[in-house]
Amino acid sequence: MEEPPLYKFGPYKIDAREVFHATPLSYAMVNLRPLLPGFLVINLRILSVCPKRVVKRFADLSSDETSDLWVTAKEVGAKLEQYHKASSITFAIQDGPQAGQTVAHVHIHVIPRKKGDFEKNDEIYDATDVKVKEKEMKEKLDLDVERKDRSMEEMAHEATEYLALF
Amino acid sequence: MEEPPLYKFGPYKIDAREVFHATPLSYAMVNLRPLLPGFLVINLRILSVCPKRVVKRFADLSSDETSDLWVTAKEVGAKLEQYHKASSITFAIQDGPQAGQTVAHVHIHVIPRKKGDFEKNDEIYDATDVKVKEKEMKEKLDLDVERKDRSMEEMAHEATEYLALF
Repeated sequence: MEEPPLYKFGPYKIDAREVFHATPLSYAMVNLRPLLPGFLVINLRILSVCPKRVVKRFADLSSDETSDLWVTAKEVGAKLEQYHKASSITFAIQDGPQAGQTVAHVHIHVIPRKKGDFEKNDEIYDATDVKVKEKEMKEKLDLDVERKDRSMEEMAHEATEYLALF
Repeated sequence: MEEPPLYKFGPYKIDAREVFHATPLSYAMVNLRPLLPGFLVINLRILSVCPKRVVKRFADLSSDETSDLWVTAKEVGAKLEQYHKASSITFAIQDGPQAGQTVAHVHIHVIPRKKGDFEKNDEIYDATDVKVKEKEMKEKLDLDVERKDRSMEEMAHEATEYLALF
């Protein structure tokens, strides 16, 4: 029997059921926590596109990896924008800890956007970051049950919907 | 006499003195407004990397343009991070109006980041967007003289510093 492909995200092993698209150098996956709590979110998803090779900083990628990563992110963005009936996309790399990177593996956040998705459009960026002031974090952790990780079943279900787009 | 190269940014003509790096398909420039007011900013700069061809959405770029754009942004990020003695970089594309895009020309924001640059690291994203709630905008416009565009001399001075890095 063929082994399922192995994807790594920093120190973590990624279950192949979370991955909905892959190229020779990159892969795209659904997220464990679709968005951080504390924000008005209507049907929004964060997807991640990563190089297969585990590297921390964007500058560590070869030109081939850089090109493959972003051509892949472009395609993922276009398909997911259409699928979610959105009209724009936020693409972002938090490249290094002082930019909010929490897993030491380059990844592009791809977020389909639509009118009214956040009370204030710009807050989408805040929501993608894990580093918030300690007090705020504590309040959120205390108050918001949604912070819990999603189950593999939930993630696999979302990934299966996207698989059909590629 | 040779004509200086012409750079367009959406409907705007960009003075060649603002441009500090160019490849066959992309160019990098300093920004008219380094950051929006209303945030605690210590020595931070936003640079923009754009395709030379005027296209609105990221998905409008060819694979060659996509690759050239991001290989260029990677190089610009690495050099500017070092120049500004930073330790991380925020890369972001606001791809479409619902993601905060205000000029209909694909551009990557490249923002060298360092510890303590914002009270809350994530607010950097807020600061890159022009769309804020109307009331907030009015307050900022009323209160903050820094909102004024920079002069060409100021921009050209910054670009000249960066030119030497390439």
